[in-house]
Amino acid sequence: MKQHALQHIVDSAYCFPVSKDEITIRLRTATGDVERVWVIYESKYKIAQSQEKLEMAKAFEGELFDYYSVTLKLKDTRLAYVFYIYDGQDYYYFSEDGATKDYDFEKSYYNFFQYPYINEADILGKVNWLSNASFYQIFIDRFNIGDKDKDMSYINMKWGDKPLPKSFAGGDLKGIIDKLDYIKGIGCDALYLTPIFKSPSNHKYDIVDYFQVDEQFGNSQDLHTLVKELHNRGMKIVLDAVFNHVSEHNEKFADVVQKGRESEYFDWFVIDGDLPTKEPLNYEVFAGCKYMPKWNTSNSAVQDYLMSIALFYINEFDIDGWRLDVSDEISHDFWRRFRKEVKAAKKDAVIIGENWHDASNYLRGDQYDSIMNYAFTKAALDYFAYNKMDAAHMARKLNDILARNTDTVNDMMMNLLDSHDTDRFYSEVGEDNDKLHAALALLYLFPGEPSIFYGTEVYTPGGYDPDCRRCMDWEAAGQDLEVKELIKKLSDVRKKCEFSSEGTRIYASEDGRLLCIERHGKKSDARLYINQTDKQGIDREIQVDPMGFKLFVNGGEMV
Amino acid sequence: MKQHALQHIVDSAYCFPVSKDEITIRLRTATGDVERVWVIYESKYKIAQSQEKLEMAKAFEGELFDYYSVTLKLKDTRLAYVFYIYDGQDYYYFSEDGATKDYDFEKSYYNFFQYPYINEADILGKVNWLSNASFYQIFIDRFNIGDKDKDMSYINMKWGDKPLPKSFAGGDLKGIIDKLDYIKGIGCDALYLTPIFKSPSNHKYDIVDYFQVDEQFGNSQDLHTLVKELHNRGMKIVLDAVFNHVSEHNEKFADVVQKGRESEYFDWFVIDGDLPTKEPLNYEVFAGCKYMPKWNTSNSAVQDYLMSIALFYINEFDIDGWRLDVSDEISHDFWRRFRKEVKAAKKDAVIIGENWHDASNYLRGDQYDSIMNYAFTKAALDYFAYNKMDAAHMARKLNDILARNTDTVNDMMMNLLDSHDTDRFYSEVGEDNDKLHAALALLYLFPGEPSIFYGTEVYTPGGYDPDCRRCMDWEAAGQDLEVKELIKKLSDVRKKCEFSSEGTRIYASEDGRLLCIERHGKKSDARLYINQTDKQGIDREIQVDPMGFKLFVNGGEMV
Repeated sequence: MKQHALQHIVDSAYCFPVSKDEITIRLRTATGDVERVWVIYESKYKIAQSQEKLEMAKAFEGELFDYYSVTLKLKDTRLAYVFYIYDGQDYYYFSEDGATKDYDFEKSYYNFFQYPYINEADILGKVNWLSNASFYQIFIDRFNIGDKDKDMSYINMKWGDKPLPKSFAGGDLKGIIDKLDYIKGIGCDALYLTPIFKSPSNHKYDIVDYFQVDEQFGNSQDLHTLVKELHNRGMKIVLDAVFNHVSEHNEKFADVVQKGRESEYFDWFVIDGDLPTKEPLNYEVFAGCKYMPKWNTSNSAVQDYLMSIALFYINEFDIDGWRLDVSDEISHDFWRRFRKEVKAAKKDAVIIGENWHDASNYLRGDQYDSIMNYAFTKAALDYFAYNKMDAAHMARKLNDILARNTDTVNDMMMNLLDSHDTDRFYSEVGEDNDKLHAALALLYLFPGEPSIFYGTEVYTPGGYDPDCRRCMDWEAAGQDLEVKELIKKLSDVRKKCEFSSEGTRIYASEDGRLLCIERHGKKSDARLYINQTDKQGIDREIQVDPMGFKLFVNGGEMV
Repeated sequence: MKQHALQHIVDSAYCFPVSKDEITIRLRTATGDVERVWVIYESKYKIAQSQEKLEMAKAFEGELFDYYSVTLKLKDTRLAYVFYIYDGQDYYYFSEDGATKDYDFEKSYYNFFQYPYINEADILGKVNWLSNASFYQIFIDRFNIGDKDKDMSYINMKWGDKPLPKSFAGGDLKGIIDKLDYIKGIGCDALYLTPIFKSPSNHKYDIVDYFQVDEQFGNSQDLHTLVKELHNRGMKIVLDAVFNHVSEHNEKFADVVQKGRESEYFDWFVIDGDLPTKEPLNYEVFAGCKYMPKWNTSNSAVQDYLMSIALFYINEFDIDGWRLDVSDEISHDFWRRFRKEVKAAKKDAVIIGENWHDASNYLRGDQYDSIMNYAFTKAALDYFAYNKMDAAHMARKLNDILARNTDTVNDMMMNLLDSHDTDRFYSEVGEDNDKLHAALALLYLFPGEPSIFYGTEVYTPGGYDPDCRRCMDWEAAGQDLEVKELIKKLSDVRKKCEFSSEGTRIYASEDGRLLCIERHGKKSDARLYINQTDKQGIDREIQVDPMGFKLFVNGGEMV
């Protein structure tokens, strides 16, 4: 047995409560290295005398590692346990002290694994609407002009031209309201909007005043109307919380520029000197951008201020959650407070971090519900666009991604192929419609919820920012496009099935050509086969054409 | 290269900030499997263009794994990094995507490791007095009777007789005050007292009233005097916070027993029914003990109440910290609040959990400073008492224990050979003085701070509770005992050296006989050799007798 591969970490994605009396336990082994795995367990006050034993099933088959899993239903949640492993030759116990041939249960209180007690306050609850949602992400300036009467003098590009970094096209909140039926018509039932607050830029990630809707986009009445119209349609809205940094024109930073240390806001920023200067740059900023000074979120007055914003839009406008910009550069300390106060204000408001990397430390129940799943994005690019992975490799990769987090988190992951921060996926696959379609099928079938960047449904191409932020092609949107129909069908499948992580199986067919995804749903089950080779692939008598895919729900072919 | 062994977990003991601009990075490999390891790093906004490269040193050699480590001093703390590994044949990069022969820094934003930004609020600060302390743990009823005028009618055993579960011997706070010079005389400068609050038992872990010193032990004036007398001597005091459960005679639980659901305290406990009943037991208790109902610490009113206790003894009595009883069965959520409020009340008050198992999730800067290091206890038992490990195995075990936590936490770990909850170590080693002496030397030299259970300094034997809680032998304490001298000498060594984790090396001599501990201190360095074999052992010309040990400070032999 490859002992180096064995891993179990208590109080992590390897051991997490899913309810007041249920705990899911995982064990990592080397791929294909062992034959059977059991968990031996009991209340920690009884395990010295007697033990229960339950076999675990292989849940994920990753690149280097297999992950076995089981969910225990417990009377006493003071859980103590060790693993019992059969590698085909020998039996091993695996405890905090590693793998051993023998195990002394009498002295096990020194080295058993344990989940000491399920405290309700520590359980990450699943927000059901989030795991069932299909998101539509809008970069507002480029989506749709709704207010024909507004001062249009700021608009400096023709709708449909290629955007430049400082282009303004005129999209606004009314323009979104006008298109809600369209968005719902393609099956999306949740909006994620890039920032809407007063800001000099087109992207509005440099906010001047968090308490005002930017006048290019409308006003607070428009926001009220948008939320109401969404909720009337059974749709949700998530806004962009830009709390890492602010515009240099924000009054608080401006005060510091003017008064230096005398300003009451001096400690709201991180300044190495008595006065912020750009040359040499002596204050912390976002990504080297001098016009975006970073908030000092370790300062409790800053935390109070940012919380007042977060709660204002929940309490006054009834929004359904926040996407957290550059969330990984802000303290855990702040996000813990954020969660407590946001969830107290609205229980099923969602918190979605922009963490491009392993974020498991933010996803333990005390901070976010979910993140934008860029690890999935990268895998989709490597498989569909860059030909870096075959089906077998891709299956293992996707399993590894799932193994990073708890099932509860996986069910809430915001999966995406692209966003305002990447090249458009459609361009990455060389504007190959078949590849986009297959990738969309994967996006909708992968545990979590899909997020479509506006324009995807009309084959909008685009390179990196600002090219990925082109104007929405409303002429194309009026046509019967295969991709639009597909997106609608895929969202119907999600609604029909109501998937949960449990029972997910991702593997490659024996001929190595098909990527196969099996999902289990509350109402129906589904199976997806993707072929990214130039030969026909077969799995259990299902034949899939070269570069094609097939989707079955309860055994019937849907797409 | 054994790829299964490679491990790096961001934002954990593998990557932690030690100051506002310093981050320690660790990489795990299979033992002896690779020759050199580097970290390649830069600010995450620059790493695509240019990279720094620094070699890492082997910090811990464990049973299955080696741990390489380096501390980076950074200008920009938005750290992105990958590892570069040479196994003697090939070079590998190691990123979030695993080990690869090539690495594309241009696309590295998808899979580099990162520490996104050091926020001060997330740094676990070192409490200097704690890492330099030598603790003396007192089980009060058995330590010393100071108040000769009190009502002694509750005392039901003769001082020095074998205690039974319900024995009362009469020890009290005045008895401790009378012995402070004695305690300081053996080199201890911090007390950890088992609970002192009103309670019917001798151990007082079933508290009736947290706001009263138990009258058997004295009164609040005695506590004031004790703290004052300690502080006058430059000593510290840590009290026992029993916040997991309470006595059934506590007025709040009594109210629930009387009124059931009508009681305002009904939700302060976890009751399955309308009224708590013992037969069948329908409420949560500690360890199956019906007289100790468990607090519902997910209830914020309970949190408020427990916090008021914690803060009362800091604010009114100036105590120096809390040891947290059964801390692992209480929610993370509560401990996060506990830390915030305790540290706000007294910055260098310490928080020490009673977690017998891997507690790394409690030791990230948001909950405790330290735990009682029972993993060390177990290793010491296996090596000195049970002959389960030779020196090489013991060295690897101790390295594995250190690798569990950050250097900062390791410097604050409360190491112990025994406590009121275990058999006495002296009995475990068959009352072998040499073994006790050698184990004490290890206890004092291991990263963290030592905690001596009262009576250790006079060779007190004892089995499991209640036998480990025998009366202090004051006649023996008046004699010149080797163990007492040794404890004093060892604490002098700690004061002389002012150790820190950095530079610690634990290994076995080439002949396999000696366990060797090298420590680096702010003021002096030290080296300890322990021989637990029946043959002479040698390391770099130092010869150590069978079953002996030698301790050097700055090269000069101390013991």
